[in-house]
Amino acid sequence: MAVIGKQTRKVDGLELITGQAKFTGDYRFPGMVYGAVKRAGVPAGRLTGVDAEAARAIQGVVDVLTAADIPGPNLIGVLPPFDQPLLAANEIRYAGESVALVIAETAEEARRAADAVSVSIEPYEPILTMDQALAPDARKIHETGNVTLSKKLIKGEIEPAFETADVIVEGTFETSFQEHAYLEPETVCAVPGRRFTLYASCQSPFHIRGHVAANLNAPASSVKVIQASTGGSFGGKDDVATEIGSLACIAAQRLNRPVMIAHERKESIIGSNLRHAARIRIKTGAMSDGKIVARQIHVLLDGGAYASESPFVTMKTLIHAAGPYRIENVAVESTSVYTNKTYCGAFRGFGVPQVTFASESQIDELAEKLGIDRLEIRRINGLRAGDPNATGQVYDQSVGLLETIEEIAKQPAGSEQTTDDRYVYGTGYASVAQGISNGAEGVDVTGASVQMSQDGSVLVGIGLTELGQGSRTVYALIAAEVLGVDVDSVSVRLVDTDAVHDSGPTVASRSTTVGGMAVHKAATEVRTSLVSMAALMFKTDQENIELRDGFAILKMDDSARIPIREVATAAYWTGFPVMNLAFSKAPDANFDDETHQGNVYIAYNYGTHRMDVRVDRRTGEVDVLNHFAAHDVGRVINPLGLEGQVEGASLMGFGLAHMERIRYADGIIQNANFADYAVPSIKDRIPTTTIAVEDPNPTGPFGAKGAGEPPVAAAAAVFANAIADAVGVRFTRLPITREDILDAVRGRDDG
Amino acid sequence: MAVIGKQTRKVDGLELITGQAKFTGDYRFPGMVYGAVKRAGVPAGRLTGVDAEAARAIQGVVDVLTAADIPGPNLIGVLPPFDQPLLAANEIRYAGESVALVIAETAEEARRAADAVSVSIEPYEPILTMDQALAPDARKIHETGNVTLSKKLIKGEIEPAFETADVIVEGTFETSFQEHAYLEPETVCAVPGRRFTLYASCQSPFHIRGHVAANLNAPASSVKVIQASTGGSFGGKDDVATEIGSLACIAAQRLNRPVMIAHERKESIIGSNLRHAARIRIKTGAMSDGKIVARQIHVLLDGGAYASESPFVTMKTLIHAAGPYRIENVAVESTSVYTNKTYCGAFRGFGVPQVTFASESQIDELAEKLGIDRLEIRRINGLRAGDPNATGQVYDQSVGLLETIEEIAKQPAGSEQTTDDRYVYGTGYASVAQGISNGAEGVDVTGASVQMSQDGSVLVGIGLTELGQGSRTVYALIAAEVLGVDVDSVSVRLVDTDAVHDSGPTVASRSTTVGGMAVHKAATEVRTSLVSMAALMFKTDQENIELRDGFAILKMDDSARIPIREVATAAYWTGFPVMNLAFSKAPDANFDDETHQGNVYIAYNYGTHRMDVRVDRRTGEVDVLNHFAAHDVGRVINPLGLEGQVEGASLMGFGLAHMERIRYADGIIQNANFADYAVPSIKDRIPTTTIAVEDPNPTGPFGAKGAGEPPVAAAAAVFANAIADAVGVRFTRLPITREDILDAVRGRDDG
Repeated sequence: MAVIGKQTRKVDGLELITGQAKFTGDYRFPGMVYGAVKRAGVPAGRLTGVDAEAARAIQGVVDVLTAADIPGPNLIGVLPPFDQPLLAANEIRYAGESVALVIAETAEEARRAADAVSVSIEPYEPILTMDQALAPDARKIHETGNVTLSKKLIKGEIEPAFETADVIVEGTFETSFQEHAYLEPETVCAVPGRRFTLYASCQSPFHIRGHVAANLNAPASSVKVIQASTGGSFGGKDDVATEIGSLACIAAQRLNRPVMIAHERKESIIGSNLRHAARIRIKTGAMSDGKIVARQIHVLLDGGAYASESPFVTMKTLIHAAGPYRIENVAVESTSVYTNKTYCGAFRGFGVPQVTFASESQIDELAEKLGIDRLEIRRINGLRAGDPNATGQVYDQSVGLLETIEEIAKQPAGSEQTTDDRYVYGTGYASVAQGISNGAEGVDVTGASVQMSQDGSVLVGIGLTELGQGSRTVYALIAAEVLGVDVDSVSVRLVDTDAVHDSGPTVASRSTTVGGMAVHKAATEVRTSLVSMAALMFKTDQENIELRDGFAILKMDDSARIPIREVATAAYWTGFPVMNLAFSKAPDANFDDETHQGNVYIAYNYGTHRMDVRVDRRTGEVDVLNHFAAHDVGRVINPLGLEGQVEGASLMGFGLAHMERIRYADGIIQNANFADYAVPSIKDRIPTTTIAVEDPNPTGPFGAKGAGEPPVAAAAAVFANAIADAVGVRFTRLPITREDILDAVRGRDDG
Repeated sequence: MAVIGKQTRKVDGLELITGQAKFTGDYRFPGMVYGAVKRAGVPAGRLTGVDAEAARAIQGVVDVLTAADIPGPNLIGVLPPFDQPLLAANEIRYAGESVALVIAETAEEARRAADAVSVSIEPYEPILTMDQALAPDARKIHETGNVTLSKKLIKGEIEPAFETADVIVEGTFETSFQEHAYLEPETVCAVPGRRFTLYASCQSPFHIRGHVAANLNAPASSVKVIQASTGGSFGGKDDVATEIGSLACIAAQRLNRPVMIAHERKESIIGSNLRHAARIRIKTGAMSDGKIVARQIHVLLDGGAYASESPFVTMKTLIHAAGPYRIENVAVESTSVYTNKTYCGAFRGFGVPQVTFASESQIDELAEKLGIDRLEIRRINGLRAGDPNATGQVYDQSVGLLETIEEIAKQPAGSEQTTDDRYVYGTGYASVAQGISNGAEGVDVTGASVQMSQDGSVLVGIGLTELGQGSRTVYALIAAEVLGVDVDSVSVRLVDTDAVHDSGPTVASRSTTVGGMAVHKAATEVRTSLVSMAALMFKTDQENIELRDGFAILKMDDSARIPIREVATAAYWTGFPVMNLAFSKAPDANFDDETHQGNVYIAYNYGTHRMDVRVDRRTGEVDVLNHFAAHDVGRVINPLGLEGQVEGASLMGFGLAHMERIRYADGIIQNANFADYAVPSIKDRIPTTTIAVEDPNPTGPFGAKGAGEPPVAAAAAVFANAIADAVGVRFTRLPITREDILDAVRGRDDG
């Protein structure tokens, strides 16, 4: 390998740190106006009126839109059921619901005028818990009821298996809502014309295009979505970008002026999806030798007011709840529920962090009960190549879980511990598997283009978005490797929906794997042209040619070389294609809808983490002393990128496990700002050491598997296990904050 | 056919007439500055200094660039030899030469400051005629000498053939320079960033990209050229767009601000290429029965100061000089020459109008000498399927010349003629053939993309430019026909170099034929997906499905139909590609470089025109009473578009033949404005009747051949022949102006 696997700085790093990268909010167009949304402010009720008179009187206001002004179906979302309006028409289902859009000459005027819009709502008693929602006589939040989706996974015979078990552990675990907390809040800028151009900070441009067109009542071909540089998304810029994208385009059409809508931080928290809060009842039966024979899990997900991606998250929790273990008898039921709270949807990990926390907590409890070492019990039960997993799917290769356990096992012990009784120390372990690709959630297709210019420079386009995760660098490396050029010769552009096949959403750790395959395929086609041309130039057969270091080289004589730019120029003038648009489709999922037995994902990323913590008994403060994160990524494309992904995802898991809690009172979020909602900052960074295991995946480019999500789950779970080890108390709810720990330590001290 | 061949209004007509179409000059970006060029003002000399002090002192001026400020090779052009600088470094070769670029806050300030730049030039004696240039002791305008290219075509044995001939006619014909005179002068707007975006009124975006990148000393992948709506080009926005595009990008890079450069009309005339003036010596030998046995032609083309596309034009004249006739013995020599005048290059027809005027004038002279009817002599000699043409190429089909002659023959006689001796009446005939595709000039490849969205709307992208000729409508019709949808469902976007294969220049009547094939190919791939999906939905075989009227329909039961939007949605979710990027390559040319015998073009458009004129003996004023233009276009894609092309091209030929003359004095153009340079306006419109002959071309979509150029040549030639018939004087020089006619009539009256 010439470039794959070599430390490579982000190809877009320089533009980001020098301020050259253009974010949506950086765009300026003549005549541009600004939009701001008026929100309901109450969690449930019937909208009886919108009075915009005062708003219209404010200096600079040019337009006020309500639901009646939407030309199309007034619906947004990413997947069925599309149950969410752009602007509320009748029902108010959560406090952050958008009711009116104000357009003004400046953002400040628009905000002031939005505040001046008067909204009349006949309030209902809000449904604020899953139990309230599921009560038999509960008010229906949607016509279909209060269950978004409920699914079962059935493998083997769960009840007889529990009867044979030597030990059984049972428990209920809970996790809180989590905010994505990206640097850049949601922003769009619509430019009207014969066709609309929408610049967007977004995650899934093709979804946006579809919704914008529908809401404009215009053909999709009349809308072009261009992803601007995007300051993070983590799943959070899906539904909301279809909402503000549609609003901006509708306003732009009415006014024939460009329209910018940029969320304030508060709106980004209350008015776009969060991670699902979850309640997980889990029961595990094992033999005295540690072998797990049965697991039963009930997952309840609080999805808030709208479906958003609850169906995907429901499926993900269903498939992943039993953990990365070979267990003959598994029963899972996963249900997502509507409540009158901010809607929940896509968030890095997609429900896997919630169920992994429950599963891995209980694995530790089981180990303790059986007196078996915690890594050993994971070794005993961990999936190996050839084992059927919870859906009965068998992989013959790229199942590197055991190697991640052994890598963790051989890491050095923690630093010396003080004997001061102010501190207690603990070590946790957690294993995880996370499916790669859309899998159960739908078809997984991606388009990518690779274009070589006559000067040998390469331009890569793709339908998936760079959100900061480093995917452009991955694509640049893949194209460079295939074409035998330097990575600096390759530019990867952001998504332009005109130029590439609809590639669905950028989710599910699919960029490197499925996206990478598309780039690989397109680059290989261009390579074929170059090799054909070089063979003509050398007057030899194609198999004697290799592309390397920017040259076409005769294999038998390294000194016989032609610069690739000359080959590219000749190829163009000879009529060999030097551009290709590839369509890449992951192998189909194929499973039973009732039992969810069958083939679901094209691969899994497997991981094992260890975390050493020191807890201050006087303050509850936790120091993470060591954090080892071993993941089977199939093949490392860019070690630096992998490190970034593992460190970032781990810190996000750490935030979920230790710091972040959305606080509601009467259906209103109380801490919709970063002063009151604690998110890990640079000061909270944990000392993550990334360990790569490479068990090649036949469905990925050069064997690679995605790695952007799995560490979230493992890090959250390993934190809980390390804390339990340190303080001797098993916490069943995330986050486990400093206060929770202090309370527990004191309780224990008191007892 | 559902839509092909039906009268279809231009798909971009509405945006053009409502002012929605965005031309380059309509773009505005924050911080945008404007560029204006200082020109040499003398036709030849050595540049000794540029003093910009006074210019820099002018309010609003932010930068002045000279040749020393060009990061790259300071070269522009469309094809080798690239002999033209962006900004003159040492030599001044024509008066319009760009010497310095001034950038200012407003266009007016930039223009004023450019005028204030002081240029020191040691003048040379300018070379202002081809004879001066070709004199043995002539100063060399370029290091390579004063001949740009000289080529020979040799078929048979010319001298013995002349000896056998019963009659020989000989003559020398001349044509003048012609200005393209598009509505919108050349304009570019460069936006800097990590990658450059250049919006341009242009003809060949990939050429621009290559030159801009080279002159920036940056990879081509860092430059994105987007064609803005373009108000005409006719070949005129090739070289000059690479010049001002490079200048704008270099300035934008220096200043990190967007830069607009828009030519004034004067600059558009003196500073960008014209049609070559030509001198053609032609000799034809025939038997007494009218059969032509030999033709010998010497073509001299005045190419002005730089090569530009002189090599292409030289080749075109070489191949076309003998006319659309089967002649066993042909010798052509074609030579383009440098002079110290505005450079000449691409112009609708590419030299064919010049040689066709000479050839068709002489055919009439021959007919007269032999006493044979003028249509009959064309019938006798006209190419038929199976005949070898001047290069020995034989077409088995799509040689519809004789049909165009018969169509012309059966048109009604002209309206009744007055007996008043103030007027004389005449009728002319002319036949033409014009090669389709790049042919002898290079590889002919085109990329096109067809993307169907889930709502069934279609977006077509292509690497060739819409310049007003109606190509977007042609592509929309082709895609609609293949996909079975309404033409309104199809959007055709302007070129974006990122999104499509380098498709070379938009020249040589290749859009409909070669471009159309690319669209056809891409659409057919999408169709395959739709048919596959529909077959699954109907649970039948693919051959039972047809796509029509926006539905997938069971052939055996017309009522069994599924809307194509539903098929498209299902195809996406099932994983069938609904976008394709096609690469289309015309069959290779293959000929001998010394004799130019072999296969050159993929097809020829053949045409015959008749024109009836009335000449006012007192004023020289000409009224065109009738103009019939019959062309074999293979297959009519859009009758309305064909009419537009034939009418527009004919009027351009009429301008060349009757009105347009660039006047030089001491190497300076004297009439660089539309008050002094007469170009046909709406008042000069001639009553063209378009007659389509359809002899299907196997290399074109649905059999189509391009039609944008051939009528220029035929109309110019037919005008000359009609005037000769009316006034009884054979004019050997174009234009034949009203004054020329008056002089001739008077001379005759006097005699």
